[in-house]
Amino acid sequence: MTAAATETVDAFHRGKFHVVQPLGQGHRSGMDAMLLASLVSSDRLPCRVADLGAGAGAAGMAVASRMDGAEVVLVERSPIMADYARRSLKLIENARFAARVSVLEVDVSLAGKVRVAAGLADDSFDHVIMNPPFNDASDRKTPDSLKAEAHAMSDGLFEVWVKTAGAIMKPGGQLSLIARPESIAEIIAACGRRFGGIEITALHPRVGENAVRILVTAIKQSRKRLVLRAPLVMHEEGHRFADHVDDLNNGRAAYRRR
Amino acid sequence: MTAAATETVDAFHRGKFHVVQPLGQGHRSGMDAMLLASLVSSDRLPCRVADLGAGAGAAGMAVASRMDGAEVVLVERSPIMADYARRSLKLIENARFAARVSVLEVDVSLAGKVRVAAGLADDSFDHVIMNPPFNDASDRKTPDSLKAEAHAMSDGLFEVWVKTAGAIMKPGGQLSLIARPESIAEIIAACGRRFGGIEITALHPRVGENAVRILVTAIKQSRKRLVLRAPLVMHEEGHRFADHVDDLNNGRAAYRRR
Repeated sequence: MTAAATETVDAFHRGKFHVVQPLGQGHRSGMDAMLLASLVSSDRLPCRVADLGAGAGAAGMAVASRMDGAEVVLVERSPIMADYARRSLKLIENARFAARVSVLEVDVSLAGKVRVAAGLADDSFDHVIMNPPFNDASDRKTPDSLKAEAHAMSDGLFEVWVKTAGAIMKPGGQLSLIARPESIAEIIAACGRRFGGIEITALHPRVGENAVRILVTAIKQSRKRLVLRAPLVMHEEGHRFADHVDDLNNGRAAYRRR
Repeated sequence: MTAAATETVDAFHRGKFHVVQPLGQGHRSGMDAMLLASLVSSDRLPCRVADLGAGAGAAGMAVASRMDGAEVVLVERSPIMADYARRSLKLIENARFAARVSVLEVDVSLAGKVRVAAGLADDSFDHVIMNPPFNDASDRKTPDSLKAEAHAMSDGLFEVWVKTAGAIMKPGGQLSLIARPESIAEIIAACGRRFGGIEITALHPRVGENAVRILVTAIKQSRKRLVLRAPLVMHEEGHRFADHVDDLNNGRAAYRRR
């Protein structure tokens, strides 16, 4: 008998870094995490980046891998997923940036002094990124409880996560997130008066098709008004990725704010 | 001395109908009104259409002009603008459809029995269209009070207008509106539980540029989730309109729901 594989080691950024991920349970990171990471860019380095609900850490590690001056804190409440993140950071393939990445096993929904005591201080990050658990009926059907936890964002959780992001971010800091289009109003409402200058980019699989994701950035305490940017189209013709989307997916470029 | 012109008679749909509009005061209709009108299509004719805040009536007349089976009620609270609409309907150029269009001089924000008594009965329209006054700082600066009334949508007015739309529309009826991108969250919130199946299309002047408008449709009592459709790009190259946008602008095609 051979033991069934329970995890995989997946290459990202065309092999520039690797992530240990559970197989058949828990959320597995892919393109969403890479596009989220592409939203982070900074002309002022070093900069501190928090990845809220980091899971196995793919998005935060993608930022650390692309940006030499980025210090990244992976915030994850699941001990199992946090352990995957810690093991990824021990991989020789990730040695180039592992010293700049740490894992904080904390629930994003903690507030006030409890949050600060847990290691998430006020006004301490230049960037906060999040790939929040998606609230989607088809995902909720999953029998896998670890995956269900990652995917089942109950009503109001955007509000809680964005509130935490606003608290731990420096004034002028940037919130970045990826979500499903149907969450757009909930996200804007959660930004409320905490964030302004919201920029939303729809991600369409092909020309003429409905969006499958939205990329959102916002600036703490900004009063600039919301803009809908030109969309990203993943496959411009056939199955091949459009060059500029491929660059974002593989850490060769950042998707900069306007 | 010659008297200065105080109004114009403008051709729409390449001369298929005309609208008398004030010059230098009040909201002047143009492409926004034509794109709004393009959102109305129906396989079941005749159908009843309400144009809320119709102004001089360009959008509602565009629907009546394109759809032989459409009966349109132009709802406008300003006596001055309602008078322009009535005069437009007397133009010989509009005789083809004028008998199917009426003007109702009523405030959209009326509710309950007062609204019904004013002529807007419950569950009585297949389509409600609206080009609500835009809430924009640069517009509010205008010294022209008639224009200011048309453009200055105060907080919560989307909620009031969409509530009226929901009340006067048949179950399964379609709400259509055009608005600025920064209003997206307010519009979705106003749809609330009254409307579902929200479809949003961003309108971009050129490839790569931010959206300047959003086209929104929703279905009364639908539970389908929101979709972001592929955007419309007005000018695909140079100054010429993209053919499919030109068709919508000139009443040669409807922009159908998915």
